[in-house]
Amino acid sequence: MAKGFLFLWFLLLCLVSSVSISLSRITPRFPSSLVSPEKLSVPLSTTKNKLYETSYFTQTLDHFNFNPESYQTFQQRYLINDTFWGGAKNNAPIFVYTGNEGEIEWFAQNTGFVFETAPHFKALIVFLEHRFYGKSIPFGGNMEVAYSNSSTLGYLSSTQALADYATLIIDLKKNLSAVDSPVVVFGGSYGGMLAAWFRLKYPHVAIGALASSSPILGFENLTSPYSFTNIITQDFKSESENCYKVIKGSWQQVDDTAKTPTGVNLLVKSFKLCKNYEYIADYLEGWLSTAFVYTAMTDYPTPSNFLSPLPAYPVKQMCKAIDDPRTGNNTFAKLYGAANIYYNYTGTAKCFDLDDDSDPHGLDGWGWQACTEMILPTSGSTNESIFPASEWNYSARASSCRDGYGVEPRRTWITTEFGGFNIKRVLKRFGSNIIFFNGLRDPWSGGGVLKNISRSIVAIVAKEGAHHVDLRFSSEEDPEWLKEVRKQEVKIIAGWISQYYKDLAHLSY
Amino acid sequence: MAKGFLFLWFLLLCLVSSVSISLSRITPRFPSSLVSPEKLSVPLSTTKNKLYETSYFTQTLDHFNFNPESYQTFQQRYLINDTFWGGAKNNAPIFVYTGNEGEIEWFAQNTGFVFETAPHFKALIVFLEHRFYGKSIPFGGNMEVAYSNSSTLGYLSSTQALADYATLIIDLKKNLSAVDSPVVVFGGSYGGMLAAWFRLKYPHVAIGALASSSPILGFENLTSPYSFTNIITQDFKSESENCYKVIKGSWQQVDDTAKTPTGVNLLVKSFKLCKNYEYIADYLEGWLSTAFVYTAMTDYPTPSNFLSPLPAYPVKQMCKAIDDPRTGNNTFAKLYGAANIYYNYTGTAKCFDLDDDSDPHGLDGWGWQACTEMILPTSGSTNESIFPASEWNYSARASSCRDGYGVEPRRTWITTEFGGFNIKRVLKRFGSNIIFFNGLRDPWSGGGVLKNISRSIVAIVAKEGAHHVDLRFSSEEDPEWLKEVRKQEVKIIAGWISQYYKDLAHLSY
Repeated sequence: MAKGFLFLWFLLLCLVSSVSISLSRITPRFPSSLVSPEKLSVPLSTTKNKLYETSYFTQTLDHFNFNPESYQTFQQRYLINDTFWGGAKNNAPIFVYTGNEGEIEWFAQNTGFVFETAPHFKALIVFLEHRFYGKSIPFGGNMEVAYSNSSTLGYLSSTQALADYATLIIDLKKNLSAVDSPVVVFGGSYGGMLAAWFRLKYPHVAIGALASSSPILGFENLTSPYSFTNIITQDFKSESENCYKVIKGSWQQVDDTAKTPTGVNLLVKSFKLCKNYEYIADYLEGWLSTAFVYTAMTDYPTPSNFLSPLPAYPVKQMCKAIDDPRTGNNTFAKLYGAANIYYNYTGTAKCFDLDDDSDPHGLDGWGWQACTEMILPTSGSTNESIFPASEWNYSARASSCRDGYGVEPRRTWITTEFGGFNIKRVLKRFGSNIIFFNGLRDPWSGGGVLKNISRSIVAIVAKEGAHHVDLRFSSEEDPEWLKEVRKQEVKIIAGWISQYYKDLAHLSY
Repeated sequence: MAKGFLFLWFLLLCLVSSVSISLSRITPRFPSSLVSPEKLSVPLSTTKNKLYETSYFTQTLDHFNFNPESYQTFQQRYLINDTFWGGAKNNAPIFVYTGNEGEIEWFAQNTGFVFETAPHFKALIVFLEHRFYGKSIPFGGNMEVAYSNSSTLGYLSSTQALADYATLIIDLKKNLSAVDSPVVVFGGSYGGMLAAWFRLKYPHVAIGALASSSPILGFENLTSPYSFTNIITQDFKSESENCYKVIKGSWQQVDDTAKTPTGVNLLVKSFKLCKNYEYIADYLEGWLSTAFVYTAMTDYPTPSNFLSPLPAYPVKQMCKAIDDPRTGNNTFAKLYGAANIYYNYTGTAKCFDLDDDSDPHGLDGWGWQACTEMILPTSGSTNESIFPASEWNYSARASSCRDGYGVEPRRTWITTEFGGFNIKRVLKRFGSNIIFFNGLRDPWSGGGVLKNISRSIVAIVAKEGAHHVDLRFSSEEDPEWLKEVRKQEVKIIAGWISQYYKDLAHLSY
């Protein structure tokens, strides 16, 4: 399988199928599942049944330099809900979600945990949108200008985003006369990385962080580049050995079949494709891999509505389709059945468009971030992998970044700025109040903090969990372990807040 | 005294006398005293009696953005001495001085504590030069270009400097194969602020910090703007009430005398001025104030060689001159005697040039820093002050920054980025391993951390101490309290290092 290496590199760096490598999708994204606000169990009377109100803050373009360009400003969006807030007079807490690489409304609708726990804590709820995403676009709010070249995109960075959050929170607290209200930050995925880093870099702004499924150790030389695909492999293997074997064997079969015109027709027919493609094997393999990767990430115990709707335990359902005796030895029928679960669970699709690259959640900036600082190697694949074997290839990443954006990645910048090596040695006696949640079925968990660091920097690990499942809206069908995880998180956060109030009463310096 | 306010504002913002407000001197600097390397008590055999070797590191211009300009590089100077180093194999420590706003050689020659304690710890010694100072000039090393306007000067900021230090240290350790060697950072004055902030922001790079005389709480709304002049007042009062009264009364007398040509001649003659000046009262008052401020800052217990040589306890000597009965009621003769101690202790000056603005230590960039982020109010002066009464005036600072550099100060940025408010509440349960040393005779001590924060973030306060006296080369004449301070510091640092080695042996995560 000579194409294997190239294929997998393409596959994992470019998750939504598109053979012309769209740099905006050069690495797997961190999509979060979407639950409709109607599922909210608590009444939102004062906000008239809205989940939040929308506000804007005039934000500084560049916090770290003082040249004339740095003084430019932009409108940063944030969502706010004060329905449950105990108020400034009571120094009631403020729960802040540190937004990730997409529309903040999507993350708000997707982070039921904050809405569901806020009443208990009488907390103000704030969701901050990350610069260059959603409606928080520098350069006059003009996406086309902001994303036009590296001179403008250059201001899209994690350190600027963190400084945005600090600036906005401090200003908001001042405006609310709530300077003594404790702030707890929450985030999932890249937003979780930002939450953890925010607590570490801005302890004077946030008293603690819940960092869910945040691969802060997912950078080069910290986590094996094979761990991402190893975990996906394990997810499918855990359902059935046959399921794993069928998928593993299919790539070669797709390649071989695509070699003849008859074979191409067979693929188009088998997978109900809307049309033919010049490089049909690449397209198809990308399309299938996307389904496997995203389904593994969001292998939730209850039905969810991710980029498309999914049943409970979707990996199990995929393997059920693959293991279905009715499809006999027909690999393509089996794969089609699996893909159908991810792409067509509602059963409304008439045919599939493999080069659909719509971006409903505005994730486009991640390509830039993956080309500058977010070098998270996920494309290694061993001989035992469910995907074709391949090596993580930094040079290939760098070269496509040069081609696509004219930018050179800063290969070691994130660990220079935020650390990561010997994390227990560094943080056991430094810092406090961080929860790192990880679900071990989530391929990103390989880069997560999976061990306790200290008494108050703790890892909560759920064997059965997927990508930031703890942050999702709760459901009566949630398994016990998930209820337990959330209880534990609430208890820990309550401890931070109560300690803070004690300190507030006794420490005047 | 209608001119009082203006005068004092001028005085304290513009310490070296110059009536045309030179923005490069808009705030009091943090000068350090210079002791010649020959005083070093330990042999430096392998470096051939040199205190250090000089090296350069190719540094990134802008760590936080990724636009094309940000990728420019410059040569950052650092000084290194491996004479005492126990080596990479033994994970022997690395002592790093985080350079302040001037030539790094000046700080090296001025920080004997690091050279004198390194042998005990078998430590490698490194002094890092701050960007835009000394030989670490961006834009091709060309001072004229780098300092030409706000587009180039814009990259002179504390956050960039800290990221420079992290980048350089990580690279140096890699090159020395010494990744497991613990790094302890040291700094005095602004360099001490950087050392403390470095430990807080880069705990993965430095295990601890000795921050000497670092007014990290010296920003607006954290420390009274009167504290700086209050301390100077107290310094002189503590020597003699008469001394204080004579100085306090002199400003009006200078003003009055300068009103007539005869009076101007009297001033020129009394103070042995080389020439006459159009605004002689302003010049003279600036010149005298400089002497009082700097002498208070460097009121060391042994003879020192600051910008000019000084005797031991120079404030006492100044007051002795003022109280000298031989000058009777002649205020100008008394003031001249005091000024002579600061400006002419060696007795070689034939006359004084009040508009001498030579800058032998390359401190010129501080004006920019004081106009962008380093808003350290020191110009408040109460009715009891030894200086004329005045108010801290932010608007005046901002307006002169606009005029001088075309830049608007970011008034609250430093506390947004580094905190400062309720420091004990924030850091009691966050962070570790910082020593804040302050000498209470140092006017900057008002903005220092004077109380213990936690078991390992501690304040060492010396009632008799002046500006980072602990970091100076030791002398047999040092008083007991100073010997004690240094012993205590060594003991604490030894504790950090020994804890680190224990963790290194036991913590693999």
